[in-house]
Amino acid sequence: MAAEPTVGRYLIERLHALGAEHVFGVPGDYVLGFYDLLTRGPLQVINTCDEQGAGFAADAYARIRGLGVVCITYCVGGLKVANAVAQAYAERSPVVVISGAPGVNERVKNPLLHHKVREFDTQLGVFQEFTVASAVLSHSDTAFEEIDRVLAAAQRFKRPVYIELPRDMVNAKGPSDSAFTASEPQSDPDVLSEALDEIISRLRSAKQPAILAGVELHRFGLQDKLLELLERSPIPVAATILSKSVVGESHPCYLGVYEGAMGHEGVREYIESSDCLMLLGAPMNDVDLGINTAKIDPLHTIYVTAERFTIGHHVFEDVLLADVIQGLIDAGLLGGDMSDIPHPERPHPFTSSPGRPLTTDRLFQCVNSFLDRETVLIADVGDALFGSLDLYIADATEYLSPAYYLSLGFAVPGAIGAQLASPRHRPLVLVGDGAFQMTGMELATAARYGLNPIVVVLNNKGYGTERPMLDGPFNDVHYWHYDRIPEVLGAGHGIRVETEDQLDAALQAARAYTDGFTIIDAQLDQHDLSGALQRLTAFLASRVREGQGR
Amino acid sequence: MAAEPTVGRYLIERLHALGAEHVFGVPGDYVLGFYDLLTRGPLQVINTCDEQGAGFAADAYARIRGLGVVCITYCVGGLKVANAVAQAYAERSPVVVISGAPGVNERVKNPLLHHKVREFDTQLGVFQEFTVASAVLSHSDTAFEEIDRVLAAAQRFKRPVYIELPRDMVNAKGPSDSAFTASEPQSDPDVLSEALDEIISRLRSAKQPAILAGVELHRFGLQDKLLELLERSPIPVAATILSKSVVGESHPCYLGVYEGAMGHEGVREYIESSDCLMLLGAPMNDVDLGINTAKIDPLHTIYVTAERFTIGHHVFEDVLLADVIQGLIDAGLLGGDMSDIPHPERPHPFTSSPGRPLTTDRLFQCVNSFLDRETVLIADVGDALFGSLDLYIADATEYLSPAYYLSLGFAVPGAIGAQLASPRHRPLVLVGDGAFQMTGMELATAARYGLNPIVVVLNNKGYGTERPMLDGPFNDVHYWHYDRIPEVLGAGHGIRVETEDQLDAALQAARAYTDGFTIIDAQLDQHDLSGALQRLTAFLASRVREGQGR
Repeated sequence: MAAEPTVGRYLIERLHALGAEHVFGVPGDYVLGFYDLLTRGPLQVINTCDEQGAGFAADAYARIRGLGVVCITYCVGGLKVANAVAQAYAERSPVVVISGAPGVNERVKNPLLHHKVREFDTQLGVFQEFTVASAVLSHSDTAFEEIDRVLAAAQRFKRPVYIELPRDMVNAKGPSDSAFTASEPQSDPDVLSEALDEIISRLRSAKQPAILAGVELHRFGLQDKLLELLERSPIPVAATILSKSVVGESHPCYLGVYEGAMGHEGVREYIESSDCLMLLGAPMNDVDLGINTAKIDPLHTIYVTAERFTIGHHVFEDVLLADVIQGLIDAGLLGGDMSDIPHPERPHPFTSSPGRPLTTDRLFQCVNSFLDRETVLIADVGDALFGSLDLYIADATEYLSPAYYLSLGFAVPGAIGAQLASPRHRPLVLVGDGAFQMTGMELATAARYGLNPIVVVLNNKGYGTERPMLDGPFNDVHYWHYDRIPEVLGAGHGIRVETEDQLDAALQAARAYTDGFTIIDAQLDQHDLSGALQRLTAFLASRVREGQGR
Repeated sequence: MAAEPTVGRYLIERLHALGAEHVFGVPGDYVLGFYDLLTRGPLQVINTCDEQGAGFAADAYARIRGLGVVCITYCVGGLKVANAVAQAYAERSPVVVISGAPGVNERVKNPLLHHKVREFDTQLGVFQEFTVASAVLSHSDTAFEEIDRVLAAAQRFKRPVYIELPRDMVNAKGPSDSAFTASEPQSDPDVLSEALDEIISRLRSAKQPAILAGVELHRFGLQDKLLELLERSPIPVAATILSKSVVGESHPCYLGVYEGAMGHEGVREYIESSDCLMLLGAPMNDVDLGINTAKIDPLHTIYVTAERFTIGHHVFEDVLLADVIQGLIDAGLLGGDMSDIPHPERPHPFTSSPGRPLTTDRLFQCVNSFLDRETVLIADVGDALFGSLDLYIADATEYLSPAYYLSLGFAVPGAIGAQLASPRHRPLVLVGDGAFQMTGMELATAARYGLNPIVVVLNNKGYGTERPMLDGPFNDVHYWHYDRIPEVLGAGHGIRVETEDQLDAALQAARAYTDGFTIIDAQLDQHDLSGALQRLTAFLASRVREGQGR
């Protein structure tokens, strides 16, 4: 970066300082000047096919890197990422939305400029619904501190923020310095001390303490602290759906994923019968906790998230999650025996039966033996997600999925963001055919930037999650030959598999082929479901029927 | 429809009564019950690959039918159509958004249900930014009148509306009747009379009267009234970009498209030197009027839109556009001679030079001689739109394009909506490669429902509109072999053309093949632009540079 402190340069510099090395988006005339500036700075522009893909990619990037950036043009670009940004809000992923906009000097007399919906602040109003801070950089003298204020909010709350950049401000000279000073949030020491005393006392007298470790531990970078706690004070720990990889499956304290009545009985029993359950960074939501089948008694629960902290029925304010964990580490309180607790079953090495038609359960078993420490697993919504909850994932493996907000179409663009965020990991994408048809052609973007995800399409000819709830022709999708997509894109390998041994061989071939993406069209029966999805849909179907008054 | 008056049934019945025969969307668990009900009623469900495609299809359908319906699930579906609905708002297309939602009985205690972004009304807040009416049908006793109120607003303002249907209300029994009574808007007779007197007096004394006929004439169904006016009182008439097909190109009064400095000189001169210019249903926006290059003197201008009516510098309130036109018809005031005015040039029959590499201008000439009365032309944003402005379109041909809001990706899904809205028309889609990569795979939807659009991809390897403004690698797109898409979809024909005669032959082959879609991959030079786009981008580039302070 040259020395001249312009608004555009300052923004790029700050994003880079906070760990971003890539920006995802599609250009347009209101943002062209900023794109031009980007190409001359330290952030690489990743052009996706559609803005939606850029939104999902930035979300995945943010989940791994701690900050993701999507940069699009005014309204026609911005409103296309509304859903992806809403998902990032709901699942606490710090995505920075940068939208180009008409210049300040073009807004005089409120003209009907192209891409304008109604008022100049219509798009701002939309993003204020699901961002924790926003700014329109219309004054160069305050632009730097506005940038700092907004980016600090993304860092602090791990949620999306919105920055609108009028095109005549990109090269506007800013002040010599930013007037912003961040106020680091801090725990009130007296409240913290009282709360820790109560937690420790409860834990010491508990017969069956347990931890439910949630997604906020990922977002706030507290996984290592959790491991430190478990090392000092072994306590059985379960993950939620959204936080599946928070503790390695082989960890001696690890129980498995807790999913209420939908999950494994051993985990459910252990958690629900705990006389001192600590929910750490696990906001209570319906999917994560088994669509309202969770039976957790608040009286025996310590609930600590970034936004709320309760013990039993009383509330503590002004206490940080990180400080609670640190306090427990320092207390060094327990020495439990972990030999009796349930553990996830380590899978047998997968041996395919030649010629045996593929089933969903066997597909997951085959995938499981394929996973290694270099894999980042990305599951789209549907059986790709629910089935993958039973996977036994090795210690260092990343697992990404929109498991609470559940927006279809996340996984393929998410793999692009994930691999750029962490190049040492190779993405393995599990995606249903319905979800693939939404965003799967972003494989073009993977090809363009030399990425090599392995994409397994669970081709069960429709929305498999919905069929058991209420079926009809609306759950069908048009049949695509996914293995032929490489012919359209002039890149990658496509393989169609119908049997177990074909899938096994296809995954091995994909591992050997590192020059580009591999797409595996895995043929499944229309009504075949994983065990996990069968447990889920039995419950959801009753909801749909209740909704119908039946 | 059975007799039992449930909320879901009443909604379907009202949509059908207002002219809808199709509903576009993607199902999800919060809307499954309503989808199930839809399959048993008079509206056909059209499943698109992604919700965005459903939004664009419903918009195109609404432009032709006067009402389009998109039906999606809560947030993960709804927010994906935000951009398409914003476009419908900006361009006055009456799209009804129906969103499934958590049941009223599920909302107690504000739980974190899946698909929920922040609050239960987060999605409602977003849609209130770009709809003219909205309702959450949470009370069965008022649901019928709420439905009527909201649908009446769509009809009256020709803009989108939002209806949220909690899933436990679908089969809730409603009241025996709707309490809603529509208030038909009416002109104030005294104001109308004074205004008409002034218009007629101005027209009578004018030496060079002219009409600029805008898109609202389409939307409010006033094209025939305009033709009646021209028959009684021949006045030279130009269209705007958004209203190109409002008058047939061969009409004796027709001047052509007025686009400020970007358009044809003869039209510009005639309009700008008029001493009595009537803008009828033509809201002043930058694209429609040549990106601020229009030089229209308000003193000599009569400006009548659905929202504002001025003569010179004074304003009339409470007067309807339709009544003004009817008043002018009844006055029967002029008998002008149209032989001297400029007319669009009728194209010569296209004769291809065998082996001559295709250019953009020649592509449009070839397309022009292919058009007939059975064609509906749908142009996506980019040169597909700007180049098509010079097409000579026969009387009865429809022309659709998002010419003001300019959202890329409209055309392919738009063709699905257009052909279902008007089955006697066969869609001819002109779409750039950048726009195609966003939504083009909705050809799967065309295949699924037996539609047969002809899609010409203007394959110039990137965002051709942006290159002349400011070029960089961000204007490139990954190269797709568009002619191979039929192999992925197992449907349609694909043809790659590099020369004029190949394009000519491909269009003839497409006409002969009516069983499915045809996609023509038209190879163009990366820097080749239509004449119209050259005029436009010269101006836009100066804007981008000004924005950069250069």
